[in-house]
Amino acid sequence: MFDHDRPEEECGIIGIVSKDRKFNAASNIHIGLYALQHRGQESAGIATYQDEYLHIKRGKGLLRDVFKPADFENLSGNVGIGHVRYSTTGSGYAQNVQPILARYWGGMMAISHNGNIVNCKELMEQVVQRGSIVRSSSDTELILHLISIQKERDTLKAILGVLNKLQGAYSMVLIANGKLIGIRDPFGFRPLVLGKIDNGYVISSESAALDVMDAVFEKDIKPGEIIISDGSELKSIDFKKDERNALCVFEYIYFARADSVIDGTSVYEVRKRLGKELARLNNVSADVVIPVPDSGITTAIGFAREADIPFEIGLLKNPYVGRTFIHPGQSERDMRVKLKLNPIRSVVKGKRVAVVDDSIVRGTTSQRIVKLIREAGAREVHMFISSPPITHPCFFGIDTSIKKTLIASRNSVEEIRLFLGVDTLSYMTMEGLSKAAGKSLDELCYACFNGDYPVPVIEDSEEGKLLLEDYRVLEM
Amino acid sequence: MFDHDRPEEECGIIGIVSKDRKFNAASNIHIGLYALQHRGQESAGIATYQDEYLHIKRGKGLLRDVFKPADFENLSGNVGIGHVRYSTTGSGYAQNVQPILARYWGGMMAISHNGNIVNCKELMEQVVQRGSIVRSSSDTELILHLISIQKERDTLKAILGVLNKLQGAYSMVLIANGKLIGIRDPFGFRPLVLGKIDNGYVISSESAALDVMDAVFEKDIKPGEIIISDGSELKSIDFKKDERNALCVFEYIYFARADSVIDGTSVYEVRKRLGKELARLNNVSADVVIPVPDSGITTAIGFAREADIPFEIGLLKNPYVGRTFIHPGQSERDMRVKLKLNPIRSVVKGKRVAVVDDSIVRGTTSQRIVKLIREAGAREVHMFISSPPITHPCFFGIDTSIKKTLIASRNSVEEIRLFLGVDTLSYMTMEGLSKAAGKSLDELCYACFNGDYPVPVIEDSEEGKLLLEDYRVLEM
Amino acid sequence: MFDHDRPEEECGIIGIVSKDRKFNAASNIHIGLYALQHRGQESAGIATYQDEYLHIKRGKGLLRDVFKPADFENLSGNVGIGHVRYSTTGSGYAQNVQPILARYWGGMMAISHNGNIVNCKELMEQVVQRGSIVRSSSDTELILHLISIQKERDTLKAILGVLNKLQGAYSMVLIANGKLIGIRDPFGFRPLVLGKIDNGYVISSESAALDVMDAVFEKDIKPGEIIISDGSELKSIDFKKDERNALCVFEYIYFARADSVIDGTSVYEVRKRLGKELARLNNVSADVVIPVPDSGITTAIGFAREADIPFEIGLLKNPYVGRTFIHPGQSERDMRVKLKLNPIRSVVKGKRVAVVDDSIVRGTTSQRIVKLIREAGAREVHMFISSPPITHPCFFGIDTSIKKTLIASRNSVEEIRLFLGVDTLSYMTMEGLSKAAGKSLDELCYACFNGDYPVPVIEDSEEGKLLLEDYRVLEM
Amino acid sequence: MFDHDRPEEECGIIGIVSKDRKFNAASNIHIGLYALQHRGQESAGIATYQDEYLHIKRGKGLLRDVFKPADFENLSGNVGIGHVRYSTTGSGYAQNVQPILARYWGGMMAISHNGNIVNCKELMEQVVQRGSIVRSSSDTELILHLISIQKERDTLKAILGVLNKLQGAYSMVLIANGKLIGIRDPFGFRPLVLGKIDNGYVISSESAALDVMDAVFEKDIKPGEIIISDGSELKSIDFKKDERNALCVFEYIYFARADSVIDGTSVYEVRKRLGKELARLNNVSADVVIPVPDSGITTAIGFAREADIPFEIGLLKNPYVGRTFIHPGQSERDMRVKLKLNPIRSVVKGKRVAVVDDSIVRGTTSQRIVKLIREAGAREVHMFISSPPITHPCFFGIDTSIKKTLIASRNSVEEIRLFLGVDTLSYMTMEGLSKAAGKSLDELCYACFNGDYPVPVIEDSEEGKLLLEDYRVLEM
Repeated sequence: MFDHDRPEEECGIIGIVSKDRKFNAASNIHIGLYALQHRGQESAGIATYQDEYLHIKRGKGLLRDVFKPADFENLSGNVGIGHVRYSTTGSGYAQNVQPILARYWGGMMAISHNGNIVNCKELMEQVVQRGSIVRSSSDTELILHLISIQKERDTLKAILGVLNKLQGAYSMVLIANGKLIGIRDPFGFRPLVLGKIDNGYVISSESAALDVMDAVFEKDIKPGEIIISDGSELKSIDFKKDERNALCVFEYIYFARADSVIDGTSVYEVRKRLGKELARLNNVSADVVIPVPDSGITTAIGFAREADIPFEIGLLKNPYVGRTFIHPGQSERDMRVKLKLNPIRSVVKGKRVAVVDDSIVRGTTSQRIVKLIREAGAREVHMFISSPPITHPCFFGIDTSIKKTLIASRNSVEEIRLFLGVDTLSYMTMEGLSKAAGKSLDELCYACFNGDYPVPVIEDSEEGKLLLEDYRVLEM
Repeated sequence: MFDHDRPEEECGIIGIVSKDRKFNAASNIHIGLYALQHRGQESAGIATYQDEYLHIKRGKGLLRDVFKPADFENLSGNVGIGHVRYSTTGSGYAQNVQPILARYWGGMMAISHNGNIVNCKELMEQVVQRGSIVRSSSDTELILHLISIQKERDTLKAILGVLNKLQGAYSMVLIANGKLIGIRDPFGFRPLVLGKIDNGYVISSESAALDVMDAVFEKDIKPGEIIISDGSELKSIDFKKDERNALCVFEYIYFARADSVIDGTSVYEVRKRLGKELARLNNVSADVVIPVPDSGITTAIGFAREADIPFEIGLLKNPYVGRTFIHPGQSERDMRVKLKLNPIRSVVKGKRVAVVDDSIVRGTTSQRIVKLIREAGAREVHMFISSPPITHPCFFGIDTSIKKTLIASRNSVEEIRLFLGVDTLSYMTMEGLSKAAGKSLDELCYACFNGDYPVPVIEDSEEGKLLLEDYRVLEM
Repeated sequence: MFDHDRPEEECGIIGIVSKDRKFNAASNIHIGLYALQHRGQESAGIATYQDEYLHIKRGKGLLRDVFKPADFENLSGNVGIGHVRYSTTGSGYAQNVQPILARYWGGMMAISHNGNIVNCKELMEQVVQRGSIVRSSSDTELILHLISIQKERDTLKAILGVLNKLQGAYSMVLIANGKLIGIRDPFGFRPLVLGKIDNGYVISSESAALDVMDAVFEKDIKPGEIIISDGSELKSIDFKKDERNALCVFEYIYFARADSVIDGTSVYEVRKRLGKELARLNNVSADVVIPVPDSGITTAIGFAREADIPFEIGLLKNPYVGRTFIHPGQSERDMRVKLKLNPIRSVVKGKRVAVVDDSIVRGTTSQRIVKLIREAGAREVHMFISSPPITHPCFFGIDTSIKKTLIASRNSVEEIRLFLGVDTLSYMTMEGLSKAAGKSLDELCYACFNGDYPVPVIEDSEEGKLLLEDYRVLEM
Repeated sequence: MFDHDRPEEECGIIGIVSKDRKFNAASNIHIGLYALQHRGQESAGIATYQDEYLHIKRGKGLLRDVFKPADFENLSGNVGIGHVRYSTTGSGYAQNVQPILARYWGGMMAISHNGNIVNCKELMEQVVQRGSIVRSSSDTELILHLISIQKERDTLKAILGVLNKLQGAYSMVLIANGKLIGIRDPFGFRPLVLGKIDNGYVISSESAALDVMDAVFEKDIKPGEIIISDGSELKSIDFKKDERNALCVFEYIYFARADSVIDGTSVYEVRKRLGKELARLNNVSADVVIPVPDSGITTAIGFAREADIPFEIGLLKNPYVGRTFIHPGQSERDMRVKLKLNPIRSVVKGKRVAVVDDSIVRGTTSQRIVKLIREAGAREVHMFISSPPITHPCFFGIDTSIKKTLIASRNSVEEIRLFLGVDTLSYMTMEGLSKAAGKSLDELCYACFNGDYPVPVIEDSEEGKLLLEDYRVLEM
């Protein structure tokens, strides 16, 4: 929920194309990115294409920090792509604001990418050894290099040749040959949807962006599908072989917006079912059900209804607390949690309180929340988590910290319960997750719960940062 | 809920004093102001006092924009006051960031004020005619002038002499004679509470600030009460005559934080009772109850429980949408509502939807919300408002726009229903309000519903801006 | 020459009025202020008047930091005043950005002031004791108070009543009654000129501003003269009694622009004559004459010509070095001088170098310059200063630091010579100054050289900050 | 002299290395860059190397805008390079802030470059066609690509292989293999000097930077010389074949600092000799000699002395006028010149004025200066230019605008004289230039005067922007 005590999404992407050459792709992307800002708050960018020129604006910060009205006077073009990005602060790697652009043998090319290429290091080594130079730490630049080094000098064929080699998670949009291209990896780790506008098409990480862009949802782009369009025609190519589907289940649990629909299923409904399932799986005896806002709300509604216990807002979130600084003598984490969440005394005082949250990463924030609730007079605190224990790091686009900081990687549930200071602690099961998501166990990625990575990853790195360590630049 | 389609609070104030001369008043106020940021986002300031010097930092913007760590190295002193302020943008009047300071015959003085002095113009005229100069458009400066022109040269006696003349709403904190002074007007329009810290006292607009400051709630400062403290002693003086109480009922309905307790009553519980009362007063037939976030949530929970209809989140709020700009060809208000709120289709589609909101000012935003819900497939939309129709402007510290823009001032409920495009529209009654608040009708201010202003106001100004028009300055 | 090692001017002012009501006073003032930026770099502001409203924009920093094009769309009005201000950084007093505005019994009033009222403290005490509040540390606010407390309720008569009481230096422009008013104190400490534009008039600190504003120089405003104009008529009132003239001689030596003409005499020509006089007064034996840029250039030209020694640029100034920070291990002052000035080796190597500068305040910068010249190979260094030794602080608008830091207040010329490390050190005489300025000794203020203050000042304060200490505010 | 009416330099570079591993390269480079800021004001950057990591800070603006003290805590390393850059505003090409970095087969590499590779387009095409991607419009990136694609996998040998192919001007510093490398092209278009510090070496565009860095001038790096050092050893390799020397003569006339010494000759002395030569070549009859500040000052001193006419400052430059905006109704260029330069009336009135300037590009600014001088009362205006007529664009690192905007490319001297409105107009000759510079005609580049480019350039592009047009990106 707070800084680094919750899995962090890495990116949101949008692409748009219209056959109307006067269409302003940039302003439409700008609106759509607002609906994806939850997927990345570190940087943002938009690139458009017109008459063999790419136009771009990108920068660090939220959309409201990066874009000014005057930018859009210059961002002309009827095809464009956009990006919002989360990146670990202080990670030691250079910041890589997207979209990124390059000239290659086919002209100008632009890309926005959501995911993580797990064999990036190995592929990058090949690129460098053949005599290309690498100018950033991102696997996004890698994709451009790979396209560029293909023998085949037809852009689409070259891309297909590249996909052959990429291992990992990638949902991406590109501009090449003046067309919009959308690609979702064969496992479908990250969502990607197609929408229809007058005279053209939109591709987006989530369907919620289509709503604000006045686009009509057309379909989920399938795992292993490429979409190419110039605004008039739409071409689809299937490059999936025999990979199983592996949609990241955390998209349903926490990442995606509640108003999005992913691979046919409403996120809101999955969350409500998760709450119901969680109540069914446990024998709940409590006087009141409260969510940890904001993400736990829907799940708690389902939970409360199934358990037939009153649902209340027991923790009030302060939306104005961002990265405020801490004064000497204050505990950084204590103060931040206290400023962000205040218990409503009349709701919890003297009560047996069921607290519903979506996940526990390190456990430190949850511990402080429990303390606040107890201090406000709760008689008992029972915690219900709508995901199973996170025991393994993610290598497919999520920052779940390094393995050793995952509390569930080295503690039993009972040990975690004692650490949090709750009367009972109940986790969701993988079966319950599947049931709520309406998907079979082998259609989702559960690697962070069981270490069963759909794509082999070299786990030699304790830090789970195995990809990029060879681009050694610290940018201030 | 959005820009100017909801009553807007004007200020939040905090004062603190410790007998420990090394106590850092400023950093404590800073933390506390975060809990009051909802009461004002236009500007913020903190003043502290030490050894006959006032130290101050103030500026436009949110707390996070105004204050930097280095400021607190210089804001020394064991007594201090703080302020957050809302002010109508583009109002044409100079911005008046508080606290404001002055030298007077008694030394240095500082003030933070929440409210509105309705006889400001008349009093200011006296001040100017006697040969004082006025340097801002604020009634806050007026209070300093009035203290300064008293014949009586004892600060406390001078203040008592001033209170005699002030008409209107004022909850304020002052520093004078190196002491902290808190004053609440005899009607008690705005809340003001007293808390205890080790070695001293805190005064705050709302009790929620006490929680984050680790202060213990001591009592509500009574209407017509002055509190004076140097950190050791605490003196209380009662200056109320025979005025009735007139707490602004919108503090319960919408302004105050749900986790605050005002004049002995939990805001959260009042809101829940408002929901229940609203359900009881009407014959509700709906399939689902949804709030307009964020303020309607608690009320909708109570409503849903009483009506025994499922409570759901049917509108998702986007917290990242602030004052984003609008592109050519877009409708400003349409786009802003659409970006801020997106309906969750699976919740409303094919349903009879009961929407719970707290108030309607101009009606334009509500109209757009209804349109969004209908477009998402709702079969029927029934709107329930937890306040009575707002027919009169407020002159006591709230910006409810000018009279002619209040939709209920010139339309019947049926006309408003047609304007909004809902199947039914139900307002709260004043009796229901009183019941939910647990206060008799003559303990609350209902002037915006019935024009019965507790203090006579000259309504000659159509704009309801009667106070300040004689300080004619436009500051860029 | 550098930070605080040279007398610092406090302000530049401009007023303009046109009878053409569509005239944009603000944009003309903006242009004019650029020509006065050398008189103040800490803050800037412009106020205009139209239809009983004052419009204002002001802020800290240079003109280029404070003003944006959009400001001028709103700064409407055919009469206006502007201000640039220098103020000692870290002085501990609140910053007082001008113009300042007030409502008084006659309506709206605005003022920009250059100078220093030496009996400010005493007058302010009267103002406070009669029941006015003081909101800044500036003697500029005092003037508004004094006008406001006059019994006489005619603005012009009230102003005349005030001038009666003010002691010290003041050149100022006001807007009152919708008219432009310009006032120069009876001693004429600071310059003030009148210019003519089509349909109106300009008042400015220096004639150089008239040039860029396309105004025609009309006359110097006389010591003890008030000018009032609405753009059509121009009225002049003389309020001088028997005060002698006392123009600050440093305006000629250093402050004013070389292209200005003050009280009938070209600044450029005075400086050249200063150089000639300096050469005549001394038996110069040197191989080359070099100025300390920029101010010494003109004086050095005159000096070189009279001494018949080649004039060269021996120190190159780096215009890009502002307030750069210093790295650990570097000497702040050494590095700053080194970055700002680099000797041209071929000019000074093996030579007997005559260095011409305008003044020595603390001597530390001069010492470093001498060191640089010697390190570049000069055989001898002879320093010639175009002002007499500064032995007393200024109380009339100049920041010459406090007395004890003035090197000449406690050292003989020989001691200073040893401190600087020069072979010879020669100062200008007061007689030489008068001769070069073409004014008799009792027409100029020489107080900083001989302590003979034209207006009595209470020198009890060692810091020479005697005026404002009773407004005790530190603003961050 | 002003915006785009004078040749504009493109870059300044610095490299430093110490064998002391605790040496802070960055803070030393930072100081040195201040002495090169005149060579580029658009962007700045510093990169350092330590333990296989590059640390970098770069950004748009002046040094004072880009660097903050905290940056230097992180810019660790005993070897580093820095850069200041000028780039045409609104040029339509993406901004390319240097240094630029890349990973290649040899590890990490960084480069700062001053100059222009004239066969960049052709070489870039080869790079792209072999399958590399290009990510900026700069010829600096090209150099990294070329090193990277060498078959030879020894860095120094690879660099030598690249130099073989590069045509054009390049003075550059690189970090590779943890060593500092400095390279000057075989023609020596741009200056490059070597200095010695305790335990190491400095390489800089100009010797003036050595002075502020406390480095001792060692030697000019020769045309066609590579310097490699790890702080202890210094290796030099000569790769010049039979190219003639072609130092850009404008370095002496205008670009370089007067306190620099280039290829053995003091810039200050060359400028003074230019003035003398200019006087000798013409029969000057004037009453006063005035420079166009700042660059013309030294030349005017020499001119005045030779012509035996008094030297005066006749135009006062306002250092505070940067890119101020212009108000409606004002002529952009008129206003800018007027704000920047004001004539000193007493100097020019009634006089025959000899104006000394360094060059005329478009002539528009000179025309306005002449107008100002005439309006100030000059009887005659004679203009003396210390360079020959500029008739051809530069392709070696200078922005002399496109050919058709060069006034001398399509007008005779008499036509230019009429355009400027001067009584006489005299240009320097190429022979005079050579004489003043103490170099023979074939040791300097005179291409902008005679079109005799030392390296063949394809002049097919009317705009003289022949290099970069294939990287089609417009960055906002």
